[in-house]
Amino acid sequence: MSVTTLSTESLATALPDGMVVTDPDILAGYRQDRAQDPDAGTPLALIRPTTTAEVQTVVRWCAENDVKIITRGAGTSLSGGATAVDGAVMISTEKMREMTIDTATRTAVTQPGLFNSEVKAAAAAEGLWYPPDPSSFEICTIGGNAATNAGGLCCVKYGVTTDYVLGLEVVLADGRAVRLGGKQLKDSAGLPLTKLFVGSEGLLGIITEVTLRLLPPQAPKCTVVGTFASVHDASEAVLAITSQIRPAMLEFMDKVSINAVEDLLHMDLDREAGALLVAQSDAPGPAGIAEVEIIQQAFESNGADEVFSTSDAEEGEAFTAARRAAIPAVEKIGSLLLEDVGVPLPALPALIDGVEKIATDNQVMISVIAHAGDGNTHPLIVFNPDDADEAARAQTAFGQVMDLAIELGGTITGEHGVGRLKKGWLPDQVGPDVMELTQRIKDALDPQGLLNPGVIL
Amino acid sequence: MSVTTLSTESLATALPDGMVVTDPDILAGYRQDRAQDPDAGTPLALIRPTTTAEVQTVVRWCAENDVKIITRGAGTSLSGGATAVDGAVMISTEKMREMTIDTATRTAVTQPGLFNSEVKAAAAAEGLWYPPDPSSFEICTIGGNAATNAGGLCCVKYGVTTDYVLGLEVVLADGRAVRLGGKQLKDSAGLPLTKLFVGSEGLLGIITEVTLRLLPPQAPKCTVVGTFASVHDASEAVLAITSQIRPAMLEFMDKVSINAVEDLLHMDLDREAGALLVAQSDAPGPAGIAEVEIIQQAFESNGADEVFSTSDAEEGEAFTAARRAAIPAVEKIGSLLLEDVGVPLPALPALIDGVEKIATDNQVMISVIAHAGDGNTHPLIVFNPDDADEAARAQTAFGQVMDLAIELGGTITGEHGVGRLKKGWLPDQVGPDVMELTQRIKDALDPQGLLNPGVIL
Repeated sequence: MSVTTLSTESLATALPDGMVVTDPDILAGYRQDRAQDPDAGTPLALIRPTTTAEVQTVVRWCAENDVKIITRGAGTSLSGGATAVDGAVMISTEKMREMTIDTATRTAVTQPGLFNSEVKAAAAAEGLWYPPDPSSFEICTIGGNAATNAGGLCCVKYGVTTDYVLGLEVVLADGRAVRLGGKQLKDSAGLPLTKLFVGSEGLLGIITEVTLRLLPPQAPKCTVVGTFASVHDASEAVLAITSQIRPAMLEFMDKVSINAVEDLLHMDLDREAGALLVAQSDAPGPAGIAEVEIIQQAFESNGADEVFSTSDAEEGEAFTAARRAAIPAVEKIGSLLLEDVGVPLPALPALIDGVEKIATDNQVMISVIAHAGDGNTHPLIVFNPDDADEAARAQTAFGQVMDLAIELGGTITGEHGVGRLKKGWLPDQVGPDVMELTQRIKDALDPQGLLNPGVIL
Repeated sequence: MSVTTLSTESLATALPDGMVVTDPDILAGYRQDRAQDPDAGTPLALIRPTTTAEVQTVVRWCAENDVKIITRGAGTSLSGGATAVDGAVMISTEKMREMTIDTATRTAVTQPGLFNSEVKAAAAAEGLWYPPDPSSFEICTIGGNAATNAGGLCCVKYGVTTDYVLGLEVVLADGRAVRLGGKQLKDSAGLPLTKLFVGSEGLLGIITEVTLRLLPPQAPKCTVVGTFASVHDASEAVLAITSQIRPAMLEFMDKVSINAVEDLLHMDLDREAGALLVAQSDAPGPAGIAEVEIIQQAFESNGADEVFSTSDAEEGEAFTAARRAAIPAVEKIGSLLLEDVGVPLPALPALIDGVEKIATDNQVMISVIAHAGDGNTHPLIVFNPDDADEAARAQTAFGQVMDLAIELGGTITGEHGVGRLKKGWLPDQVGPDVMELTQRIKDALDPQGLLNPGVIL
């Protein structure tokens, strides 16, 4: 079979010198994202535009030449949303890094390539706060956050990315750029298109600018940490808290992740504990004291071995950082299949118990960490990629965890997106009619099927 | 010209006895909504289904017979979103009134026909809170709220309807019913279709069930009321507040509305005041005291004549009720063209000043009330419908107010929706590409163009 590679010369001519990269060594670095798909393709070319107009030029060229397009932020997708496809152009937004903070409207207008942490820092420099905080906030881009409707630790009280996106600029599949929404806080003019693009995983357009709502700074936080003999006890403690208050954070780690983090950070975590909960309250004054008491009480009445509270910001941040370090820490044990299943809160203990059973049944290690306060868990399936049998069992467990979440009335992905890894399970969750509806919207907005092929559909 | 009226007999046979209403006297009551369009059509038939299956039967019959469908909640649309069209079937959701409150997941699952106030009350009975509070909350339905992404007074801190919709059941244009989202708090599985339907104004499907997120009860509120010599001073005071805190409410009334409300409610409002602001803080303890101080200070430094604070809930509610009564109160002066324009907050004084100028230029009375804290204003254009010249000038002013909002980077509708009244201005705000995008989505989901024709597009 002979393969003719399309020449990108006409594209190179239309863009600034050197912007079209075809060097195989550089392309190799853009094949995989954090899902590390071994079957990732190789891009036809890599483009790192700096302006919306350049993105439009690329998209128009691709539309004319029927070339698929993958858009990549920092490549931190855990579900293969930014995995390269053979023959497709890879647009990396890494050089689209302009941002302005408008204190009068309390908004940030950013190009997509800034890291979430940079937006947070720029807002903080003006006495403002951008809440969404994926664990990867220091290495993931705001454009990727918008494309996947990213969540994080503070979602339990402060919501997810879509709750902060007031406006977008999007390059459509035919190369036109449209502006949706804006700096006004309320806008009911026409279909809610801004909301349609946030979380659309690159399927409907390329986000080239995001207008984000900022908040006044978060009030000082109190942190409560509790250790439990079992994951089940800890998950019951979560329900005891969320039935009474909205904590500002409520995170869960199991024994494997506690030990993996302790190996990495040496912060004297209890290696014998079956589970650890880290909760925070940011309610001011007496309300905060009352919330901390409710959390402590919920821990104790659900059999916590040890409960520790602190209003010291640095101590609190150390536990938050420990929780954030869990994925990289567990990754040191082996390769990971990273789950992101969510359930309605009362089903959380059943989900956590069920995952334990799936691990036993398949003889694989599954470490569970969770944004427990909103029912969103990350079972981490650990396996040795060189052990084909174990890898196969890990894959089976991966599917069974999603099946379980669906059975419990939940979702196969709470915040990472479907990407390429989970699309096989999406129809089981949403059903054929919703899949068909999805396809109709995709066809209406991208009739050539150029944008991020293989994701969701 | 002869008109053949389609027989609804086959539809009547497919539905419970008497559900298809063709009595002209009853139909007459379903022609207009609160926009009171004198050119409203007459429905072919009125259907008041009780179940999703009945809605599906109606939609399938309409699809087969190419009959248009208008869906109506309580008919409180201020932009003509539920105005009847000649020959179209009118589906009223008024008998779809089932609701369950799930305290474990903190959700309400409701059929669309319940009043917003009924959802609030049912939540409150379980110690929970449904925040969105359109001024019409006692007479508008939750289905209409979802279809228009309704706002209200507490939005400034607590967001709009879409922020509370976790799931929907929707009957599509071909009669299929789909379930979107659910009780899980975070869900990134597939395109954000739930968000697409909230605020789609009946164009894409018929909402037959809504799953709403509920919150723990709101903390006790402090209310601060200030009177100002001019609307300009009051709008500057708004900015002084919103640049420092997020109040739980920040409402604005001008002299006309103050006097109209005083005529109606006799609550001893200052008839000489140029403007009145009603602000609330629900921050607990010392944080609340600090917020109240910031509000008082902002009032005083912007020339407030009188500032009054109270932590008495009943007194606070009296001022909130006064603000809510403004539209019906001003309506006693004459017919209204009701505006709903919003701007980025710093443009609020320019908008309010500009509206005053538009009133002078066109020699019409325009009373301005506003959810000032989020930049969403309701200029009420008062006119005598029997005075053709004045009615024409009112119509001119109506358009000029929207033109001004667009010029200031804002929106022609913050919370009421485009409906039939404002669609002429939508292209000026969003541009031809967004209109075309909107049409493409409409065509993809409703290729026959059956659903709510004449709205938005």
